[in-house]
Amino acid sequence: MNKKDLFDQIVKKKSYLCVGLDTDIKKIPSSLQKEKDPLFEFNKRIIDATEKYCVAYKPNIAFYEALGAKGWESLQKTLEYIPSHIFTIADAKRGDIGNTSTLYARAFFETMNFDSVTVAPYMGEDSVKPFLEFKNKWVILLALTSNTGSKDFQNLKIDGEDLFMKVIKTSKQWGNASQLMYVVGATQASMLGRIRKEVPEHFFLVPGVGAQGGDLEAVSKEGMNKECGLLVNASRSIIYASSENDFADKAAAEAKNIQKEMETYLNKYMK
Amino acid sequence: MNKKDLFDQIVKKKSYLCVGLDTDIKKIPSSLQKEKDPLFEFNKRIIDATEKYCVAYKPNIAFYEALGAKGWESLQKTLEYIPSHIFTIADAKRGDIGNTSTLYARAFFETMNFDSVTVAPYMGEDSVKPFLEFKNKWVILLALTSNTGSKDFQNLKIDGEDLFMKVIKTSKQWGNASQLMYVVGATQASMLGRIRKEVPEHFFLVPGVGAQGGDLEAVSKEGMNKECGLLVNASRSIIYASSENDFADKAAAEAKNIQKEMETYLNKYMK
Repeated sequence: MNKKDLFDQIVKKKSYLCVGLDTDIKKIPSSLQKEKDPLFEFNKRIIDATEKYCVAYKPNIAFYEALGAKGWESLQKTLEYIPSHIFTIADAKRGDIGNTSTLYARAFFETMNFDSVTVAPYMGEDSVKPFLEFKNKWVILLALTSNTGSKDFQNLKIDGEDLFMKVIKTSKQWGNASQLMYVVGATQASMLGRIRKEVPEHFFLVPGVGAQGGDLEAVSKEGMNKECGLLVNASRSIIYASSENDFADKAAAEAKNIQKEMETYLNKYMK
Repeated sequence: MNKKDLFDQIVKKKSYLCVGLDTDIKKIPSSLQKEKDPLFEFNKRIIDATEKYCVAYKPNIAFYEALGAKGWESLQKTLEYIPSHIFTIADAKRGDIGNTSTLYARAFFETMNFDSVTVAPYMGEDSVKPFLEFKNKWVILLALTSNTGSKDFQNLKIDGEDLFMKVIKTSKQWGNASQLMYVVGATQASMLGRIRKEVPEHFFLVPGVGAQGGDLEAVSKEGMNKECGLLVNASRSIIYASSENDFADKAAAEAKNIQKEMETYLNKYMK
């Protein structure tokens, strides 16, 4: 998917919500456990219930990988079920030397048909570039993450500047705003404004709203640009809004609430 | 596997060779392509041919993941085929927020039964610690990698010190030398001595010898400690020593050559 198609969806749905499919086999309602593929069955119902309110789905690959080959089958089926106008993110945080990164890119862009994959920056340019060679596919590079451990290295000072900012300044030369996004955690909204100044046109994938406590209005105010420029992810607060058989209805209600809030912020802050 | 068992193997086999199973479906001899599971069949023959000369096998997960669910089955079968006295490394370079890292750890330590997994440090302590909670399992943390892009961030200076050194100094507080190793690329042997001073007891996984041009004697001289402390990986130079039907014999010969060289260095530098 290209940037224009993504922006068109945001305008049409008045939403920049990404629903995180962190689907945990242990948290799926017991009524679904008897299905042949409980993970896929759960995702299918979540997708049916929330697709009106979101513009992206982000399966968290660890949750599928933990089940081995069977988990990869559930992932593949989930991906195929997502309507093609919705942006898909493989949250995989891969990154390795060049020829290995090429194979990870093939895994997510060819064997599966994701629009984007999250990539870790530690190994530098030749670990990221192979992902950027695929047309209409995106790298979402980790910049500033939402976990407490982000402080250990991402906030180290290099010539007075945070490492995460150095990662952004260096990597923005590797790809343009039509193929490269950044992960910027919602728990650090104060940093979002600074990052937005550095990369005015790039999209940010913002995790950490909801269960992790980030503030959606602050994120929107600091991070939005004239094409929205934000995909804000919520996972657990939507998909586990209820642990009972009404989980899909409750997920829809929660996604709708967020979409309504986002509609307000699009009117208020998109410029 | 614990540290004593690993060291015992090194002494017994007079080797600290790790064979990298970067098994590329496109590089497998055509005679194997008709097998039901060509990747596994190739690995099986490589393992049969080289197990006398090495103490570890390191499947590069990207090569299996690129084939989807089928690749994960080949990986699982390969892992089960490796003799239990040989150390196994999932070269996966994972790393995510805490609950997600727990699932990656389950994928490699429980769903599969690897002894260790390579982990990227960028997200900090809570992304690494979940892997350290498994008994007799190991984290192999990226410190200084062997690719050209390693310079982009790993050599940035923080208070006059390289980022990779900061990663080592910080992370050595998270786990001890019986559960934590470091990836230190062979292409930067001059750095190995400095790192060895900082972490005298930790094992290093050293990629980059062979196809990537690292010097085995320099690495051994700079990096060895009194329990060897090194696992030196060679992938392509062994498994693709021949592209014909004699690939296993040629792999054995190459592995044996390296083992013989290692025997010399163990006598010369282990202290």
